[in-house]
Amino acid sequence: MSDERFSSVVAPRPGAAVALRPVTRGRVRGGFWGARQRVNREVTIPLGGERVRDSGAFGNLRLAARGARREEPGKEHRGKVFADSDVYKWLEAVAWERGRAEDDDLARAYKEAAELVVAAQCADGYLHTHTQLTGRRRYSDLASSHELYCAGHLMQAAVAGRRATGDHTLLEVATRFADHLVKALPPEALDGHPEVEMGLAELHRETGGRPYLDLAARFVAVRGHALIPLKGHHGPGYRQDRVPVREATTVEGHAVRAMYLAAGATDVAVETSDLDLLAALERQWRDMVATKTYLTGGLGSNWYGEAFGGHHELAPDTAYCETCAAIGSVQWSWRMLLATGQAAYADLMERTLYNAVLSGISLGGDRFFYVNALRVRAGADRDDLRAPARGRQDWYGTACCPPNVMRLLSSLDHYLATQDGDGVQLHLYAPGTVRAGSVLLEVETGYPWTGRVEVVVRQAPDRPWTLSARIPAWADPAGVDGRPAEPGAYHRIRRTWRAGDRVVIDLGIRPRLTAAVPRLDVARGQVAVERGPLVYCLEQADHPGVIVDDLCVAGPGLADGTAVAGLPADVVPVIARGRVHVHREYDGGFPYRTAAAPPEPEHAGPAELTFVPYYAWANRGAGPMTVWAPMHPR
Amino acid sequence: MSDERFSSVVAPRPGAAVALRPVTRGRVRGGFWGARQRVNREVTIPLGGERVRDSGAFGNLRLAARGARREEPGKEHRGKVFADSDVYKWLEAVAWERGRAEDDDLARAYKEAAELVVAAQCADGYLHTHTQLTGRRRYSDLASSHELYCAGHLMQAAVAGRRATGDHTLLEVATRFADHLVKALPPEALDGHPEVEMGLAELHRETGGRPYLDLAARFVAVRGHALIPLKGHHGPGYRQDRVPVREATTVEGHAVRAMYLAAGATDVAVETSDLDLLAALERQWRDMVATKTYLTGGLGSNWYGEAFGGHHELAPDTAYCETCAAIGSVQWSWRMLLATGQAAYADLMERTLYNAVLSGISLGGDRFFYVNALRVRAGADRDDLRAPARGRQDWYGTACCPPNVMRLLSSLDHYLATQDGDGVQLHLYAPGTVRAGSVLLEVETGYPWTGRVEVVVRQAPDRPWTLSARIPAWADPAGVDGRPAEPGAYHRIRRTWRAGDRVVIDLGIRPRLTAAVPRLDVARGQVAVERGPLVYCLEQADHPGVIVDDLCVAGPGLADGTAVAGLPADVVPVIARGRVHVHREYDGGFPYRTAAAPPEPEHAGPAELTFVPYYAWANRGAGPMTVWAPMHPR
Repeated sequence: MSDERFSSVVAPRPGAAVALRPVTRGRVRGGFWGARQRVNREVTIPLGGERVRDSGAFGNLRLAARGARREEPGKEHRGKVFADSDVYKWLEAVAWERGRAEDDDLARAYKEAAELVVAAQCADGYLHTHTQLTGRRRYSDLASSHELYCAGHLMQAAVAGRRATGDHTLLEVATRFADHLVKALPPEALDGHPEVEMGLAELHRETGGRPYLDLAARFVAVRGHALIPLKGHHGPGYRQDRVPVREATTVEGHAVRAMYLAAGATDVAVETSDLDLLAALERQWRDMVATKTYLTGGLGSNWYGEAFGGHHELAPDTAYCETCAAIGSVQWSWRMLLATGQAAYADLMERTLYNAVLSGISLGGDRFFYVNALRVRAGADRDDLRAPARGRQDWYGTACCPPNVMRLLSSLDHYLATQDGDGVQLHLYAPGTVRAGSVLLEVETGYPWTGRVEVVVRQAPDRPWTLSARIPAWADPAGVDGRPAEPGAYHRIRRTWRAGDRVVIDLGIRPRLTAAVPRLDVARGQVAVERGPLVYCLEQADHPGVIVDDLCVAGPGLADGTAVAGLPADVVPVIARGRVHVHREYDGGFPYRTAAAPPEPEHAGPAELTFVPYYAWANRGAGPMTVWAPMHPR
Repeated sequence: MSDERFSSVVAPRPGAAVALRPVTRGRVRGGFWGARQRVNREVTIPLGGERVRDSGAFGNLRLAARGARREEPGKEHRGKVFADSDVYKWLEAVAWERGRAEDDDLARAYKEAAELVVAAQCADGYLHTHTQLTGRRRYSDLASSHELYCAGHLMQAAVAGRRATGDHTLLEVATRFADHLVKALPPEALDGHPEVEMGLAELHRETGGRPYLDLAARFVAVRGHALIPLKGHHGPGYRQDRVPVREATTVEGHAVRAMYLAAGATDVAVETSDLDLLAALERQWRDMVATKTYLTGGLGSNWYGEAFGGHHELAPDTAYCETCAAIGSVQWSWRMLLATGQAAYADLMERTLYNAVLSGISLGGDRFFYVNALRVRAGADRDDLRAPARGRQDWYGTACCPPNVMRLLSSLDHYLATQDGDGVQLHLYAPGTVRAGSVLLEVETGYPWTGRVEVVVRQAPDRPWTLSARIPAWADPAGVDGRPAEPGAYHRIRRTWRAGDRVVIDLGIRPRLTAAVPRLDVARGQVAVERGPLVYCLEQADHPGVIVDDLCVAGPGLADGTAVAGLPADVVPVIARGRVHVHREYDGGFPYRTAAAPPEPEHAGPAELTFVPYYAWANRGAGPMTVWAPMHPR
């Protein structure tokens, strides 16, 4: 296929109220993300197809195609009620991957699965294998059936197929289903798990079908009035049904649901030019960032309901930080970035990608984290509830996260840059190319290991336009072509560019110590190490003879290290001066003592601390790990 | 009834492997606990009866008595599957209360409810209204049916009736049910919610029926082999079915279940002289105290599963600390105290009673907390998940806690003192009397407001014996009759006592600042205020014009205050020097900043901090509260 095909996961319509628009095509070639995309294509997507098949999700489609009913023995629906969505997310990943480079195996795999989907669809357009196979009445349990959730993922996969390869197969299925939904759904119907809003909005964008957008807008408007029947122990906030989106001042409840809803609501807001709704979403996003976001960008501190906790409830050990919630956050921030053009959205998106999303998949691409804790103590593996202590898993019974990572990695190219009437904006830095109309840029960089980014103009119109480069908030010092640049904003250069023009951006990447604001009690007296967009951690593998729980940082000096045993050679560790504080843990005593004579460590000695990127942890076995370490009083 | 009737909630058999035994009768008269008992009798127990009736639990018994089936319209079982246990716990409270002072109203209420229980029992001894009314097969879903859990509460109520008043009504029901269980239960049957172990052990103690003890021992032995079918999202640890009790090194899973199991296992261990089992329980108790216990004695940091978190996962804001878990902890510690005679068990029991249990009921006795957080931030009431921010409730849909508090308060007299071959041990200090065989002691004290306890010997045998007085670990300085006494141990005086002899214990109660050990990251850099056995907190009601979130402690000086507006006159507040640190909270910024220039409060001014006892919080409306406050760097 041609490099010129428009390819973007989000594509606002011409009249949409957006500040920025996707470029024609971004393309990562090599470097940090290129290596992850290669693993995604060669390892993760193929094994994902196998695992989805093994889970029974393909079989469900096959049975649905035969009109099977559960009365036939051995013909039961397998897996969760949302099993179909695993297929759709995996298909979306395959589609974007085919768009990156066509390949017989991928095309065959896509065709086989897509045909199963086609065959499983009911004559009237309905499609949800769990409902079809169990004979349950359609839409009779939307609070938990995930019928519309699955529909949304189908729509996103269908749009991906169309945009990446021109393949209409799923788009026809999705359109028929959407047409059915527009007709069949009662006015106050709402899925317990938002997702279909994004799917409908993108289907509208791809097909021009206005009723799809109207339906998405209706879902956003109806939500928040406690119309969804309560199930289980959760209140209406769990399903974002306590406060209308337009009135909410914060995000709450199940974090993935909250992010998917917010992203879909943003689509609705920009397509309907609903600036009040957009303002409400901006307010919620700011509150989330200020009070409910982990240093990694991870979201959700509450295992109860896989949910956001209250504001400033961000204990690192009990962090839930579901990989899918981080992906949903990237999706929302990207849409807010398009809507507003504000650098803060890109900053959070980058932080979340490099840390909270990427920690969800092993370096080898074959093992996964569903929950991404920021601290695992020694001995936590003996605990029933602390899954991260037991390390990455091959797959999950609820397998939402792995194929979500797949589709994000295979569409990562779309998030590099945007365009507006005045030029092109670079948001993420990776070696590759950006095509925006008559502009073609080439980017060379060793980012995030080095902060030097070289942008070469390969094609440009013969008139002035602005090249904007995001300077991340942490960049210190930052410069463009030798002149200082302001962090947390876009550095803009307007001129008539010529092919061969070159801009050098220097983002001042060096290791730094980070502290939390005083309100964040859980990190009081502790520091974290960051370097560029990467959050680091102390991992047991690098500290033989002591346990990570006993380590603290002894001074402000940090230095880049050299290679780390067991991690890829390009990973730059950070070395810090530290101390070992041994505490006798199980002395049978109550852990609270008089503050007049506060408990002292039994022994303190110097130590060299090796911090490694958080995303790379648990690739050398499971074990203690911490993002935050106590700061030894000077 | 006679003051001489033996009355104790736990009564080891003559051969049991215990160091200490209950006294013949302890009796609180007035003072701190006397006032709580009066409210319990006059307000809480009557309204509890009404609420239990309103919940449908009495109606369930009535329907079961008629052999109703759910096919009859309008004859459904009402409430939770464990609704019967609310009746039993309330009956137990009424029974102990009748033992404290007989009263026509109580006797009538008891008789009415007990007769419903008698009538509802099946001919073969089985009794569980939910199973009877729904027609579900008995014991077919023990993982969640609570059939044996309810049976256990029936047995405890029955023993209470017998010991407090001599009434056999419920004892006959309980015995018939227990006989049925002994015969009917398959060898590997286990209730998902432990409780019946304690009930069976006490029924054995009361009746001498060895099969009851054997069945309890079997439950303890079979548990921990993952035989209970998994339900919901929880692993086997949630129901304490992951590791056998004998092998466990810590407590895990649902905290109430863990405590009830441990208490029942302790009963089994001492009655069967199983010292290995007892050693395992001691190990688990020590680990719990060192790593999983809040300063209040509260247990359970994980809303997910109302469960223990991992070790050192003790964030104050997300504390679950179910009132029932604290009561279970008191029950376990008391049994461990009887088994070992070690002061640490009494120390935790006292801490838990005054703080984690007592916070579960309002000063007026008519409103309740199920969850007892140690911090509620300003604005937390806008959050779906933070129930404590919305204040105390009249009752709960799952109403386990209120009647649990009732039965504990009405049996609190039993926990004052013990006896052994050599004398009498005083554990809790309250004005009243202790009868132990031929010894009669009278205690006078204003504890916990003052540390002076006067013990007068009223009757004594004409031979030497030892009077032991527990010196709490926090007592500083502590003295008995003017001589220094060692905190965290029993001060023992052996002599031939004469009527009129008097011992003066001085427990050195003064306000103190408490810090956590370094491993407890969530309290790093913060302090709490304690005074005697009481944990204190900062409450919004006492700090108009600022919010509690902005307060920090500025120095070590603490002083007793005078009366606090809106609290009873005898409550002693603690005054501390503090500062107000105003942080602009929702500035839209990421709450993590470079540690080189850590974020400073925008404004700092002096403030007088008023700490009030934690148990008394949320009696003047709901609002921000914290047990831990940051220590302003000096």
